[in-house]
Amino acid sequence: MDIAALRKSHPDHWTKAAAIRALTLDAVAAAKSGHSGMPMGMADVATVLYEKHLRFDPRNPDWPDRDRFILSAGHGSMLLYSLLHLTGYADMTIDEIRNFRQWGARTAGHPEYGHASGIETTTGPLGQGISNAVGFAIAEESLRARFGPRLMDHRTYVIAGDGCLMEGVSQEAITLAGRQRLSRLIVLWDNNNITIDGSVDLADRTDQVARFRACGWEVIEIDGHDPDAIDAALTAARASDLPTMIACKTHIALGHAAQDTSKGHGALTDPDQLAAAKQAYGWSHGPFEIPSDVKAAWEEIGRRGASGFDAWTARLEATPPARQAEIARIFAREVPKKLTARIRALKKQVSEEAPKVATRKSSEMVLEVVNPIMPETIGGSADLSGSNNTRTGDMTVFDVENRKGRYIHYGIREHGMAAAMNGMVLHGGIRPYGGTFMCFTDYARPAMRLAALMKVPTVFVMTHDSIGLGEDGPTHQPVEHLAISRATPNTHVFRPCDTVETAEAWELALQSKDTPSVLSLTRQGLPTLRTTHKTKNLSAQGAYVLADAEGKRRAILLATGSEVEIAMAARDLLQAEGIGTRVVSMPCWELFEAQDERYRRRVLPAGPVRVAVEAGIRFGWDRWLYGERGRREKGTFVGMHEFGASAPAGVLYEQFGITAEAVAAEVKSLL
Amino acid sequence: MDIAALRKSHPDHWTKAAAIRALTLDAVAAAKSGHSGMPMGMADVATVLYEKHLRFDPRNPDWPDRDRFILSAGHGSMLLYSLLHLTGYADMTIDEIRNFRQWGARTAGHPEYGHASGIETTTGPLGQGISNAVGFAIAEESLRARFGPRLMDHRTYVIAGDGCLMEGVSQEAITLAGRQRLSRLIVLWDNNNITIDGSVDLADRTDQVARFRACGWEVIEIDGHDPDAIDAALTAARASDLPTMIACKTHIALGHAAQDTSKGHGALTDPDQLAAAKQAYGWSHGPFEIPSDVKAAWEEIGRRGASGFDAWTARLEATPPARQAEIARIFAREVPKKLTARIRALKKQVSEEAPKVATRKSSEMVLEVVNPIMPETIGGSADLSGSNNTRTGDMTVFDVENRKGRYIHYGIREHGMAAAMNGMVLHGGIRPYGGTFMCFTDYARPAMRLAALMKVPTVFVMTHDSIGLGEDGPTHQPVEHLAISRATPNTHVFRPCDTVETAEAWELALQSKDTPSVLSLTRQGLPTLRTTHKTKNLSAQGAYVLADAEGKRRAILLATGSEVEIAMAARDLLQAEGIGTRVVSMPCWELFEAQDERYRRRVLPAGPVRVAVEAGIRFGWDRWLYGERGRREKGTFVGMHEFGASAPAGVLYEQFGITAEAVAAEVKSLL
Repeated sequence: MDIAALRKSHPDHWTKAAAIRALTLDAVAAAKSGHSGMPMGMADVATVLYEKHLRFDPRNPDWPDRDRFILSAGHGSMLLYSLLHLTGYADMTIDEIRNFRQWGARTAGHPEYGHASGIETTTGPLGQGISNAVGFAIAEESLRARFGPRLMDHRTYVIAGDGCLMEGVSQEAITLAGRQRLSRLIVLWDNNNITIDGSVDLADRTDQVARFRACGWEVIEIDGHDPDAIDAALTAARASDLPTMIACKTHIALGHAAQDTSKGHGALTDPDQLAAAKQAYGWSHGPFEIPSDVKAAWEEIGRRGASGFDAWTARLEATPPARQAEIARIFAREVPKKLTARIRALKKQVSEEAPKVATRKSSEMVLEVVNPIMPETIGGSADLSGSNNTRTGDMTVFDVENRKGRYIHYGIREHGMAAAMNGMVLHGGIRPYGGTFMCFTDYARPAMRLAALMKVPTVFVMTHDSIGLGEDGPTHQPVEHLAISRATPNTHVFRPCDTVETAEAWELALQSKDTPSVLSLTRQGLPTLRTTHKTKNLSAQGAYVLADAEGKRRAILLATGSEVEIAMAARDLLQAEGIGTRVVSMPCWELFEAQDERYRRRVLPAGPVRVAVEAGIRFGWDRWLYGERGRREKGTFVGMHEFGASAPAGVLYEQFGITAEAVAAEVKSLL
Repeated sequence: MDIAALRKSHPDHWTKAAAIRALTLDAVAAAKSGHSGMPMGMADVATVLYEKHLRFDPRNPDWPDRDRFILSAGHGSMLLYSLLHLTGYADMTIDEIRNFRQWGARTAGHPEYGHASGIETTTGPLGQGISNAVGFAIAEESLRARFGPRLMDHRTYVIAGDGCLMEGVSQEAITLAGRQRLSRLIVLWDNNNITIDGSVDLADRTDQVARFRACGWEVIEIDGHDPDAIDAALTAARASDLPTMIACKTHIALGHAAQDTSKGHGALTDPDQLAAAKQAYGWSHGPFEIPSDVKAAWEEIGRRGASGFDAWTARLEATPPARQAEIARIFAREVPKKLTARIRALKKQVSEEAPKVATRKSSEMVLEVVNPIMPETIGGSADLSGSNNTRTGDMTVFDVENRKGRYIHYGIREHGMAAAMNGMVLHGGIRPYGGTFMCFTDYARPAMRLAALMKVPTVFVMTHDSIGLGEDGPTHQPVEHLAISRATPNTHVFRPCDTVETAEAWELALQSKDTPSVLSLTRQGLPTLRTTHKTKNLSAQGAYVLADAEGKRRAILLATGSEVEIAMAARDLLQAEGIGTRVVSMPCWELFEAQDERYRRRVLPAGPVRVAVEAGIRFGWDRWLYGERGRREKGTFVGMHEFGASAPAGVLYEQFGITAEAVAAEVKSLL
């Protein structure tokens, strides 16, 4: 790589790119940790992207019609932070850059959504950003179809590394993007041939160009340090009617002694080598120092977007007020005002009609109410549409020819689906939900965790949530998955016991602006237990008394979902023997935990023995079997203690001993 | 599809394949659930494979040098069960087929490893089987290099469906297989263009042929109902020096009214349609009835393998007894006798020298002892070799030119790595371990669950196991991952506090024959706490008293891993105030749970208050904060209550309040 020639042929470009490289070297050296090489390698690509293609306005970072830039190779976070600082995002000050990777700084080790403007998604776990990006691109297509290109007309740009492309989730996303011909999606592959362990070749010899083409993508190969080639490739990509991957041949840690080595991937902190690299760049300024002319040139780039924003705002203001309000509403993640009334009406109806249906079917009944009044929902399933009951009657299929379609066939790609849904929420204007079997939360888990970490209200519709699945056997029967979901911070796990609770769960999931929800739903039919209509959303408190003891209260049964029916039957057995028994339905532990202690004590008072019943493992239940800190009750658990088995559901409940009789016997053993 | 022509041109083949189709139709109809279409579509391929290529001996199903057949599309389980029954596997009786999907039957909804001979791995969660297969093929290459082709010379055949290929994990495995040129791996793709939701086209238009070629595979395209073409393709695949994918164009539910439809994917139970399909097959026999000539023809196929087995046995017996014993040992998953002595010597040495090292480094120290005496270990990492400390000095890299290498660069493919490792254990003769960051157990989780379900002792080396990771931030900091691993049945989660416990954990992980282990290891240095040498493996009981109270025992501190040091410091603070404090180290909850109640009570006696400390979430800890059933202690927890943050590790421990002072304060608040 002839740096001198590049400096000479493109001096203005070079200086701007050198500012990124210098900031990266300084910040990583100050933190004594981080990844220097990637920003140094991709600085040219990023500079051309921001200077000549990306439509953004640092003063209006939430502009709905901005282009999105996603740094999927999140370890190169200093690339993004440098760009945000240089182009004038107010919250990305030079002090933030100086405090790279320190407590309280916006400049976390990996880009964290919500820490600073211009960070569109949290990246770091590889493959996630590129998969989010597919959701961004779907959101754009959907909103453009809905509101027209005068209001929605933007692109999603991604920088991805070799790691992103090795991770399986990226292939799920890439093949989905190819299938959907998401032409507004442009991936810049940092083809530097280096990973942490050494040459990419150690682990991979895939022909990425051919692989992307096989997936229905346009591919352009360029020298990632040639500004003209980068510009031409981006121009061509924008004109393509396919998603485009631009393979950018780059040198990791360009100009540093560690260039083109795996050492260059990490933290380059040697002062002499740092000085030598800066000298090669012709960069003679002090640490964190950006000369005013360079800063001015970058800020000029940042200012260019203002006219686009102003023109867009004018177009928006020329639309009917109702439309403006609608756009504001959906980007604010607000539910329509009438949602609650519609949910209440459904609750009233089902509490009167008391249908016996599986809660996956209940969920469909709720969605039949929700989807017509929330045009921002996009439903889907990972090839289990008929089982997950996620498609409602009004939904057509999102496709190349039908961008107004609101149902996505994600294919057998649970992980890609979850990551794409996160992308749609992050994009804004869309409320996605998607289904698979509860057991396959395993596959979607890395993206589900990121939804929680990013505080985005993605809704995961997880059906077939226990051994009630039956004959498909233990590979398909969740036993630890409720525990896994509940163990994840900032996640609401709803396990409703009937259609009324399912309606309440959906209302809460949709009202949430910053917490993802997992809806754990049955395959098997369940009776309606909430047969007395209450307008209040009882599930909002997480747990409540479904049936109180008659006579002296000696036992409390705690249950969720399909096992509430069993608890109610056990209560009948116990009451028949004169043992006063309360049943507490606990559709959402996290919301119950969030109540004040007084409410929790009212629901779970001291004194009575406690038996929890759930067709999953005990792990986590001890929290509720004993009292508040310092209080002491006897308690035990009826549920699973191992993996499930293949047999009809009724047989499994008997064989694993999850029955009303077993619950009643446990109560009596504790009295 | 002209069935009549096929019947006429290949009558013998046809009848054998029809037996599979008929058994499938009968079994699914009897169970009223299952998947008929796939076995009906792939019966021709499977018949030719078993008749003309697969080397197997139903009387010796564990023959180490047999070919392996993996039904990655596990929902088509009746294909495998039919083949096992027809070829004469003694435990796959017609009664088992009749009891398809019923309690206690070997014929679970999806093939379950261990339920019957000839089931090489558990499949059903899509993409797993094909990814296991890559591990099988690696194992074969490794053992062939070690023992020579006279003892190890076999192939791995896989049937995979569209679902397998859409799942990201399969691409991780496929690209790894391409990189490693695993020419003994042959994948038969059931290219039927149907998934549950409908045509594959709904969700995917990938050119699979081009994609496999881009990944370094040979590809052959055939009509999957033409026996001659199938035979020729398998012959060519066996001769190739690349892994081969045979794209078999098939008709799902061949000959049934539901042929070529998504309905055909599921359970076909209509009696009239079933009769019509059988008529099209020329199959006039009753349900579950196989005419004796057809059964005889199939059993003849099953008998052919005996000569191969006998010849192999003769060759084995001609080798030196030590070599025979070694092969027997490694296939029995036995550790060498000297392992325990070597581990003890290491424990003695480190308890004397008391080094301060990270437990990931401790793990490397143990592996330096283990690997030279256990040639069956194969180590690796998902591109974090230097961080996971998984490569020891004696290990060379497994590669095309060095099949004796015992270290695998898995690339950034945590899920593929985990699935491949499972495959190696299942193959036999190999004890794999592989590393990534603890947080990325998320990516590997579906395969980790299957290791537990299948009862195979895969070892997952998970480093950087808390906020102690530091600056990389919350995306890389596990907080719920200990809970997730512990929640999984049949999984040993070891979180050692120093090098001595790390050595004990490794010993237990390697001694295990049927439980996978997760080693949760620190990035940061830890002091040696076990400074008095004990020959006994104290970790084997899961938890033990590391330091007892001086004076009256008023508090018990429970801790794991890096927080045991904090507990010990808290004990110092409390003892200084005259508060007698015991510290219990709990390196493995599951093993402690498995002790008798007497031992548990001895370690955690009634009376003293309990404070647990762990740099993860509380979820699950309540089990230990309170006493045995019916017993009552006060307890609380010091640890994480949310996601982590990006900052140096020491700062994070302070900011999140995980300190000796905080632990001591909690104790005092409870007294």
